[in-house]
Amino acid sequence: MLVATRNPLNIGSAARAMSNFGFLHLRVVNPYEIAFREARSAVGASALLASAEEYKNVADAVADCTLVVGTTAVGHRELRHPLRRLEYGARLIRKEAASSRVALLFGSEKVGLSNQDLSHCHWLMRIPTREAHSSMNLGQAVAVCLYELVRDAKARGQQERPKRAAAGEVERMTALLNEALRLSGYFKSGAPASTEDKVRRLVRHLNVPAGDAELWLGLLRQIVWKLRSGEKLAG
Amino acid sequence: MLVATRNPLNIGSAARAMSNFGFLHLRVVNPYEIAFREARSAVGASALLASAEEYKNVADAVADCTLVVGTTAVGHRELRHPLRRLEYGARLIRKEAASSRVALLFGSEKVGLSNQDLSHCHWLMRIPTREAHSSMNLGQAVAVCLYELVRDAKARGQQERPKRAAAGEVERMTALLNEALRLSGYFKSGAPASTEDKVRRLVRHLNVPAGDAELWLGLLRQIVWKLRSGEKLAG
Repeated sequence: MLVATRNPLNIGSAARAMSNFGFLHLRVVNPYEIAFREARSAVGASALLASAEEYKNVADAVADCTLVVGTTAVGHRELRHPLRRLEYGARLIRKEAASSRVALLFGSEKVGLSNQDLSHCHWLMRIPTREAHSSMNLGQAVAVCLYELVRDAKARGQQERPKRAAAGEVERMTALLNEALRLSGYFKSGAPASTEDKVRRLVRHLNVPAGDAELWLGLLRQIVWKLRSGEKLAG
Repeated sequence: MLVATRNPLNIGSAARAMSNFGFLHLRVVNPYEIAFREARSAVGASALLASAEEYKNVADAVADCTLVVGTTAVGHRELRHPLRRLEYGARLIRKEAASSRVALLFGSEKVGLSNQDLSHCHWLMRIPTREAHSSMNLGQAVAVCLYELVRDAKARGQQERPKRAAAGEVERMTALLNEALRLSGYFKSGAPASTEDKVRRLVRHLNVPAGDAELWLGLLRQIVWKLRSGEKLAG
């Protein structure tokens, strides 16, 4: 919910972040009329913006919500409301939103939420910015809050990580590399087998992805081929 | 690190998010000259932007980093890189950044990072946007990624929650409310004590904050006073 927003770019970017993260119901309270009109008519304005509901005051805008949360850039220390960090507040919001409607209020760019706006809030939430520069751009603050609401604490990279090459492929790479090193004179003739083992360890450390192994084998074969043909000429 | 950014507003808002979250070293690679100049000279441009370092190519810009991570809005499925969700990737970045330098690359607004840019990356990271609208505004994407890097998974609201009123204050409130109800005729004369207990439960459910108790007591005293003076007149 955007309260008294002045800048059409900010209305637009808040709407874009909502769409990115799947929050499709925007309400605007008392926006600067021109800003709201401009935002709606902007190129690429989302369907979300077209269907945004406009209210004259916060009371009407939050009437059907069971939890109303205001956002603030700290600063005013004598807040009469519980103030929660985003990481924790988002958890409470998710819980409530599972069964009923929650309003998340963002104030105007210059002054944030007024005391009257705040009096409709159950509690306030702040993004953990550094104290020396706590005030965020409105569109960015919306994006960060909504991201926290959808982020998955259990997300792992496992499934999206590419498979490692099979040991057989890696061993073929190792053999070719050893051959190339032998042909280049890197190994003195009669070098102990342990030297080849060192190379094997080196190659294992690379963690070659499955999709790259064939390309590597091709590169190495070509180098070995070239070194061999040079040897024949020399011989 | 911003690569080939076109829009001065985006350079500015990326810098603002960096400052908000305490990342003070911006590098820009091959920006559109005019955009970079405009961003630097914009009103309110940060010290961070003034001290941003400019590079001709990604190779030079990442030369002193031990981990290079690219950002992408998925889409191209045949990525040759491991692709990690932000929640998980940020954990790996934090670990690496504890002991050495990490580069986080953001591509141009239109086309993202080129294949050549990507070839410098160890892996890629994506923000969990919804598939139907996955592409984020550049400044917002920067804000969300940096927020994830500084967020504190253990943050609790406890310390910032206002203290509850002491039981004695709540009991005085209860007594005044009971008195007011009696004076208003809400309680029939001779109502059992259990009726007052019900009111006590109601008041306990309110979880009155410590800072509000005195105000409540004042309000209730005034009501009781008014009711009593009415009773005297009637009597």
